Amino acid sequence: MTDPIRIGIVGIDHRHIYTMTQHMLDAGCVLAGWFTEGEPGTLDGFVERFPDAPRVAAAEDLIDAPDIDLILTAAVPSDRAAISVRAMRAGKDVLSDKPGVLTRDDLATLRTTVAETGRIWAVDFSERFEVPAMTRALELIAAGEIGEVIGTVGLGPHRLNAATRPDWFWDRTRNGGILADIGSHQIDQFLAVTGEDSAEVILAHAACHRQNGFQDFGEIVLQAGKARGFVRLDWYTPDALPNWGDGRLFVTGTKGTLELRKYVDPGGVPGTDHVILVNGEVCRMEQASEAGLPFFAALAHDIRHRTETAMPQERVFTVCDLALTAQELAEC
Amino acid sequence: MTDPIRIGIVGIDHRHIYTMTQHMLDAGCVLAGWFTEGEPGTLDGFVERFPDAPRVAAAEDLIDAPDIDLILTAAVPSDRAAISVRAMRAGKDVLSDKPGVLTRDDLATLRTTVAETGRIWAVDFSERFEVPAMTRALELIAAGEIGEVIGTVGLGPHRLNAATRPDWFWDRTRNGGILADIGSHQIDQFLAVTGEDSAEVILAHAACHRQNGFQDFGEIVLQAGKARGFVRLDWYTPDALPNWGDGRLFVTGTKGTLELRKYVDPGGVPGTDHVILVNGEVCRMEQASEAGLPFFAALAHDIRHRTETAMPQERVFTVCDLALTAQELAEC
Repeated sequence: MTDPIRIGIVGIDHRHIYTMTQHMLDAGCVLAGWFTEGEPGTLDGFVERFPDAPRVAAAEDLIDAPDIDLILTAAVPSDRAAISVRAMRAGKDVLSDKPGVLTRDDLATLRTTVAETGRIWAVDFSERFEVPAMTRALELIAAGEIGEVIGTVGLGPHRLNAATRPDWFWDRTRNGGILADIGSHQIDQFLAVTGEDSAEVILAHAACHRQNGFQDFGEIVLQAGKARGFVRLDWYTPDALPNWGDGRLFVTGTKGTLELRKYVDPGGVPGTDHVILVNGEVCRMEQASEAGLPFFAALAHDIRHRTETAMPQERVFTVCDLALTAQELAEC
Repeated sequence: MTDPIRIGIVGIDHRHIYTMTQHMLDAGCVLAGWFTEGEPGTLDGFVERFPDAPRVAAAEDLIDAPDIDLILTAAVPSDRAAISVRAMRAGKDVLSDKPGVLTRDDLATLRTTVAETGRIWAVDFSERFEVPAMTRALELIAAGEIGEVIGTVGLGPHRLNAATRPDWFWDRTRNGGILADIGSHQIDQFLAVTGEDSAEVILAHAACHRQNGFQDFGEIVLQAGKARGFVRLDWYTPDALPNWGDGRLFVTGTKGTLELRKYVDPGGVPGTDHVILVNGEVCRMEQASEAGLPFFAALAHDIRHRTETAMPQERVFTVCDLALTAQELAEC
């Protein structure tokens, strides 16, 4: 492989690509080039952020390039699995935006491809990997500050931004459904805070309140070991919220509790990454925005050393599998 | 009936009796006397708060007294229904601490008794009726500030205070189970904020993590009309929280959201009754501790004028029925 790790981007259809790219650059990677179909609404923002990287004429120019190590994709969700498989077959590791996979068939193909190629298929569950408050919460849990985790409540409201959304955003076959999409973060997060390897989907629900076939409200109930996890997702962030969503995580342990106000403390203190710890000794809010985002450097390490420190490969598949299970249950 | 309304108390086993009594006195009632079995741990606190009221030797001295209009009971939960029925048969109205009823048989008897006597059987769902933030939230919802309610999340952690709890607190047959007990508040609250007459219990769960047969963790998922409601209950309030529980209510509407930090804003601003409204125009936290508690004066009005302004009688039964349904589902 090259040194530094060289990145090619295939698909910038979701703006998540901005931070995915920047975090990998911050981890010492180099952006060799990028490809995207047509002129997505994210194009200007991408070029503004990464003006020096060349746009190439075809995905193959990156996927087949011998001097590229890692393919990033934030293509239309339904295209991500095929892009990932092609890239791994060409010897590349992959970091996909979430959701990385929308169907059982694609998930099976991804598993087979990883097994056969030995490549890394990572998914950027950004509501954990790009949130310093989550880094801090996991440190506090690991330090025993709240005892054994017995319950979580994750609230994931999102701003709809209807006027600026592309066609694929509204299309169930291309967006994957609310639970497979923005629910996948929450499943990842539940496993991370409980320390469990997998979970059972106890309940899954999706509704289209705006009545255009777009799932704008969803719920999941999970169980893993002793712990229960509830997840509420929606596309109802009100306009006056100064951020895209009031993402929260409540963690109840046998000895204490955590609350994360990840992106905003509405009507409260400025900034992001508010972590509230209450246990036998303390009741305090701390600002955790400097707690770091270890995932991206760990992924670079894994690419270089063929390790699984960022997120075990099987865990990535488990999260995707559970997200698909939830989506299927909600629609059956 | 008398003027002012005269109260007799039968059972002070739960400290809820302190505020139930005080709120009815504040509504213009007079405490004629009280009875309780033995020497509950609440006794000293009660006498300290209401030193002038006479303790009587038998419940019948109050239930059968012609100059008493209203019986309050915070007896051991499993005794409340029978006390209520005896009181109504004797021509009294009743305000019971929650849970007011623990079994289907008792609920049926209460319904029959109300139908036959025309008496009022009220239950003090204190997490609404004694919380000014709830008064304010219902005003904001009624004013259309968040549009149509499509989802609620209610978090009801409670402090265990194991050392000071009486025997009945630990006994499923006398406490009713976590969902019938502290879940009943949440069901009441869900119906209040959605404006629905009833709901379906979609999921109910109870667990005994401390493994002594005491249910210390529970969940309910409700549906009514378009709205879903999730409820999480537990007895895991950490010692350092400066209050008995970090009760929250999140309400998602089609045009905005509400969050209530009912009893404490942990690590944040002092005081109680924090109401956070976010909609198309505003994102603000307000202190609602002066929003009032209309239930108690409304109940006094109902007693005097035979109306149903505090809470329709059928609604009381519906809430109790749903709480029993949830408890049954969780244990089946």
